Amino acid sequence: MKTGVGRRRFIATAAATGVLVAGTARGEDAPSAATPTPDVIWRLTSSFPKSLDLMFGGAETFARVVGDLTGGRFRIDVLAPGDAVSGLQALDAVQAGTVEACHTSMDYFYGKDPTFALATAIPFGLNARGQAAYAYEGGGNDLFNEFLGGYGVLAFPAGNTGAQMGGFFRKPVKSVADLQGLKIRIGGLAGKVLQQLGAIPQATPRADLYTALDQGTIDAATWVSPYDDDRLASDEKTALQKVAPNYYYPGWWRGGSVIHVAFNKAKYEALPAPFRAALKAAAMTANTEMLARYDARNPAALKRLVVSGAQLRAFPQDVLEAAFKTTNDVLHDIADGNPHFKAVLDSTVNFRSEEYLWWQVGEYTFDNFMIRQRAKG
Amino acid sequence: MKTGVGRRRFIATAAATGVLVAGTARGEDAPSAATPTPDVIWRLTSSFPKSLDLMFGGAETFARVVGDLTGGRFRIDVLAPGDAVSGLQALDAVQAGTVEACHTSMDYFYGKDPTFALATAIPFGLNARGQAAYAYEGGGNDLFNEFLGGYGVLAFPAGNTGAQMGGFFRKPVKSVADLQGLKIRIGGLAGKVLQQLGAIPQATPRADLYTALDQGTIDAATWVSPYDDDRLASDEKTALQKVAPNYYYPGWWRGGSVIHVAFNKAKYEALPAPFRAALKAAAMTANTEMLARYDARNPAALKRLVVSGAQLRAFPQDVLEAAFKTTNDVLHDIADGNPHFKAVLDSTVNFRSEEYLWWQVGEYTFDNFMIRQRAKG
Repeated sequence: MKTGVGRRRFIATAAATGVLVAGTARGEDAPSAATPTPDVIWRLTSSFPKSLDLMFGGAETFARVVGDLTGGRFRIDVLAPGDAVSGLQALDAVQAGTVEACHTSMDYFYGKDPTFALATAIPFGLNARGQAAYAYEGGGNDLFNEFLGGYGVLAFPAGNTGAQMGGFFRKPVKSVADLQGLKIRIGGLAGKVLQQLGAIPQATPRADLYTALDQGTIDAATWVSPYDDDRLASDEKTALQKVAPNYYYPGWWRGGSVIHVAFNKAKYEALPAPFRAALKAAAMTANTEMLARYDARNPAALKRLVVSGAQLRAFPQDVLEAAFKTTNDVLHDIADGNPHFKAVLDSTVNFRSEEYLWWQVGEYTFDNFMIRQRAKG
Repeated sequence: MKTGVGRRRFIATAAATGVLVAGTARGEDAPSAATPTPDVIWRLTSSFPKSLDLMFGGAETFARVVGDLTGGRFRIDVLAPGDAVSGLQALDAVQAGTVEACHTSMDYFYGKDPTFALATAIPFGLNARGQAAYAYEGGGNDLFNEFLGGYGVLAFPAGNTGAQMGGFFRKPVKSVADLQGLKIRIGGLAGKVLQQLGAIPQATPRADLYTALDQGTIDAATWVSPYDDDRLASDEKTALQKVAPNYYYPGWWRGGSVIHVAFNKAKYEALPAPFRAALKAAAMTANTEMLARYDARNPAALKRLVVSGAQLRAFPQDVLEAAFKTTNDVLHDIADGNPHFKAVLDSTVNFRSEEYLWWQVGEYTFDNFMIRQRAKG
């Protein structure tokens, strides 16, 4: 990409597209100040509460890197949910231009179109590395952006949690029969799958999970990964393992959960090329860093959870197989009536099949040996 | 990081540290040209031949992103091995300031100090995600840079191949006994381990591998991953599977092989902050992108290799176990006489143990189920 940003064109562009700060016509030859006055200020609303600190931190990393890369000329102000709009209004706000950007989980917008959910994770979808390979090198992000174009929005991956856990259950799940009538805090596509298997998905707020599990109003609650699950326990009244000690894995509905930064497309396209490059590189930094943070912090968190009462249990094979079959049915049903969904799903599933062809040879056998050696001490 | 780059300071800095291009005092208010004149030009020498196109491409990505991020003001010219210095002279050239940067595999400098090898991969080391987590969030890259400081060099991860293959063998390896006298093209720490197990490591050049295997001058040759192994077959006189069809996995000596960009530290530190930020973000982009490229291309390459005669074989369990035990002996022997090596090794091994604690629960069980479902069709 050839880029050249003359000062005049730059200011004209900034005025047209973002917040042009008064007094930016300062002389370039002036001595450098500690913090230069930004030429452009964008607002980015996060859909994640600050208590999910690695997710919220992804937006902070993103904003910091954009600032570093532009010498402070492009400032992104990170807003928590509620500062400007709620977490679930993030995409509408970007589309309307109320804010220029958001950092969000696209599956929150499942109700607009289930295609959004495909960009985050589908049950039994790609693992985190597969998602990066698909997004960057398998055409996945371009395909998703074709769909997002209809909303006037453009997005890049900017975070991944890795494989999530299956959550906390009051009683062990010994077979598919145990899902009958199970009230479980879960949403989206996984909720649809579990519903078809007899469970009753719930939308219990975080603050109520402990009491609901304690009193048996619900039977199970999914949250995120060991790191976030353990953070719940920082307040003893949200330590779910105390009231629902059966702690399940794998979180088959999120083998790797992508978090995106999304931009108002018109505002993005009108930015000078180096600022667009800064957004892209900062998104990639946030994407890689968040996964590294989960990977680095999950082990100690898992140990703490077990020490404080969580009993690790694997979902039984028949539950996984029934869920896999039902997932395929649910996905195909949606695809039948939604060409966007079908296009993204087919592409994802094809990539997944290819990826695991290689994975089972190179990566899996290496991990398999390492895990067995570790178990031997 | 607060950054402010006044034009005057910037030019002074550029003059002190890089190549200051004549005529950079062009007016900032001049209309933007298609390609601006760079303020700084660096030369980066790659240690990888262009035939390893994903590795060499990592340097090209790195240079392109730095250019994009700086609007063309910071240009990095990528040199192939031999253009300025050979691949193995890359680090010396950076240390001496002959070139400002290199893109290399640190284990090439094992002869200077075996600590270099730890930054790339050790046998039975971290997988690619573990390496990213360790480098970025486990203190790994900072620790390595403490060591590199002694060479006046600073480095960031800027590429990863993922798990490599075990290479091509003329005859099947059925047990440790079959390693006796086995002439195998392999180097570094893995060569030391195999030597202790009775094999005879060879340094056969790429161009001679086919003939050497065909004539039995050597018995086996390791290369990279399916993608690169298959690229060898683009010329039928380097299609190793034709003369050594037993194609082994996993490549236990490289569960994930890190490639670095390294900079002359004084030149790096004297750069304006946004240029330093550009180097860092571009390195992360190259790091994530290269792994995504291998992950996206390995499946089709593996299929092509098998179609053209490669017979996939897993290393027997007793070979892996003997290699694991010998690896520990070799590593501890080196650590006994080298405190740098010991510090990095202990830190890496500790991180590995923690990482697999979590991996065996969350990631591995997810992959395990997906691989089994795939096998069922």
